[in-house]
Amino acid sequence: MASRTLHVTVPDAGWADRLADLHDVDLTVWDFASPQPDRHVDLAVRPYTVAAAGLESLDPSRLSVVQSQALGYDGVADTLPAGITYCNAVGVHEASTAELAVALLLASQREIDRYVREAGQWNRRFTASLIDRRILLLGHGGIGTELEKRLDGFDAELIRVATHRREDERGVIHGTDELESLLPTVDVVVLAVPLTEQTTHLVDDAFLSALPDGAIVVNVSRGKVADTDAIVRQGGRIRFAADVTDPEPLPADHPLWTVPGVLISPHVGGMSSAMQPRIDRIVRDQVQRLLDGRELEFVVVPG
Amino acid sequence: MASRTLHVTVPDAGWADRLADLHDVDLTVWDFASPQPDRHVDLAVRPYTVAAAGLESLDPSRLSVVQSQALGYDGVADTLPAGITYCNAVGVHEASTAELAVALLLASQREIDRYVREAGQWNRRFTASLIDRRILLLGHGGIGTELEKRLDGFDAELIRVATHRREDERGVIHGTDELESLLPTVDVVVLAVPLTEQTTHLVDDAFLSALPDGAIVVNVSRGKVADTDAIVRQGGRIRFAADVTDPEPLPADHPLWTVPGVLISPHVGGMSSAMQPRIDRIVRDQVQRLLDGRELEFVVVPG
Repeated sequence: MASRTLHVTVPDAGWADRLADLHDVDLTVWDFASPQPDRHVDLAVRPYTVAAAGLESLDPSRLSVVQSQALGYDGVADTLPAGITYCNAVGVHEASTAELAVALLLASQREIDRYVREAGQWNRRFTASLIDRRILLLGHGGIGTELEKRLDGFDAELIRVATHRREDERGVIHGTDELESLLPTVDVVVLAVPLTEQTTHLVDDAFLSALPDGAIVVNVSRGKVADTDAIVRQGGRIRFAADVTDPEPLPADHPLWTVPGVLISPHVGGMSSAMQPRIDRIVRDQVQRLLDGRELEFVVVPG
Repeated sequence: MASRTLHVTVPDAGWADRLADLHDVDLTVWDFASPQPDRHVDLAVRPYTVAAAGLESLDPSRLSVVQSQALGYDGVADTLPAGITYCNAVGVHEASTAELAVALLLASQREIDRYVREAGQWNRRFTASLIDRRILLLGHGGIGTELEKRLDGFDAELIRVATHRREDERGVIHGTDELESLLPTVDVVVLAVPLTEQTTHLVDDAFLSALPDGAIVVNVSRGKVADTDAIVRQGGRIRFAADVTDPEPLPADHPLWTVPGVLISPHVGGMSSAMQPRIDRIVRDQVQRLLDGRELEFVVVPG
């Protein structure tokens, strides 16, 4: 087998340190903000971002593959120059994002946010719980299945909904055409769908109006899946716990920050200690695939 | 079978409404603060409290059984007059308390408390996660097993510790004599032990010093299981998320409120929507047992 040296770039010195043991790899640092390297790059690990912006200026004659550290890739296909392959990061963020969704849901349901704001006071009041409640999981992809696994032990009933009705070993997964009849029967909705034309503003006034008073909507998918103005209008009646917003970042003076019953984290679902070992494993595996002449995994935009 | 009317008291009008359908029961309201009824009471449902104080003035010639709505009964055996039977409430609060423990743990680990304090800002930072972490569950009673069930899906390793080493179908449960060697190896400790002479100030300077930097101690058992002064001294190095404190209520000017990395809820583990249907079921069952001449359940201090 012909020996070959692969040219790989990583976005910072920490990455270069962690991958320093790789054989047959010429490893350099490139952060995608400084000019693209003159020599040909086989695989460039992008800084951690979900933005498509910036990709349009890449020169495909000197770059074969971009490995993203993110799961989402909205807009990449329309932005990336032809000839460059784009791979997303599957198995890196799903569990961490599902964990944050459960953290936001539990914090909202058990009013941890109120205890933080009332620190110094000892105000005992009854709160809701997940016990005996019906939780609708909207989306049954990577994040949805990790959510299901985490919520299984909480004595709640999980109502699973995906695009098309189907069954798995646990029972029925409802189709989105059943949402209208399901929404009035649930206490919690967790949004874990990708952003598509169909899911944009899926959570609008009609969706929220169908939910019973005091229901919680948790959003860890994309901000545009919910109509922010509708959330603001229904604030006080419906609670909202979200790691993603529209717009994002949410401006300091945006009314959503101060709507009662709204809890916001700044898009940090994947930004946990779970990320680094998992993205490192993916990059190591992709490098080995290129060295072996095998196909890459997680190609979402072919070159 | 001789027909018999049971005299039952309940602590408020809401209780009386909920139990109005009971047959062969003379139901009156008594809140334990007003004078004890003149006539004999077969079963008195106490207002929801864990305090033993107040029980010493009960007249055992006119009262057979006190049904508590709480799980804990520290000090009751020393306070209750001889001749009165005391029953605690098993299966009412364990799941709700375990849920709050997970809510506090996730909020602390994913820094939900910081996002609440920083509302209006969009400060994205990496946080810890439960994924890949080692969580020591101290106590394997009702709350401990509910904790285990809830934490199972979080991709963490659960290290179970009880008074004596034993095994169950999941594997080994370590004994407390192994704590010294286990503590340096874990990222999280969740306290779910009853308050006894052995567990009072179990979490002291030596215990906390054995934990690695950044470890979290979650307390949902009793405040006195941890030495509050030691927690304050180790604040900043160790994080602490607690539903119970010593003293309790925690005074507004207590230093624990402002120690970095400390998150406190005001002893509301059982105060959730899960409580009412479960305590109602227990009281209905105890009444039926008395009517049938069967033995009561959950007797913790025999009369």
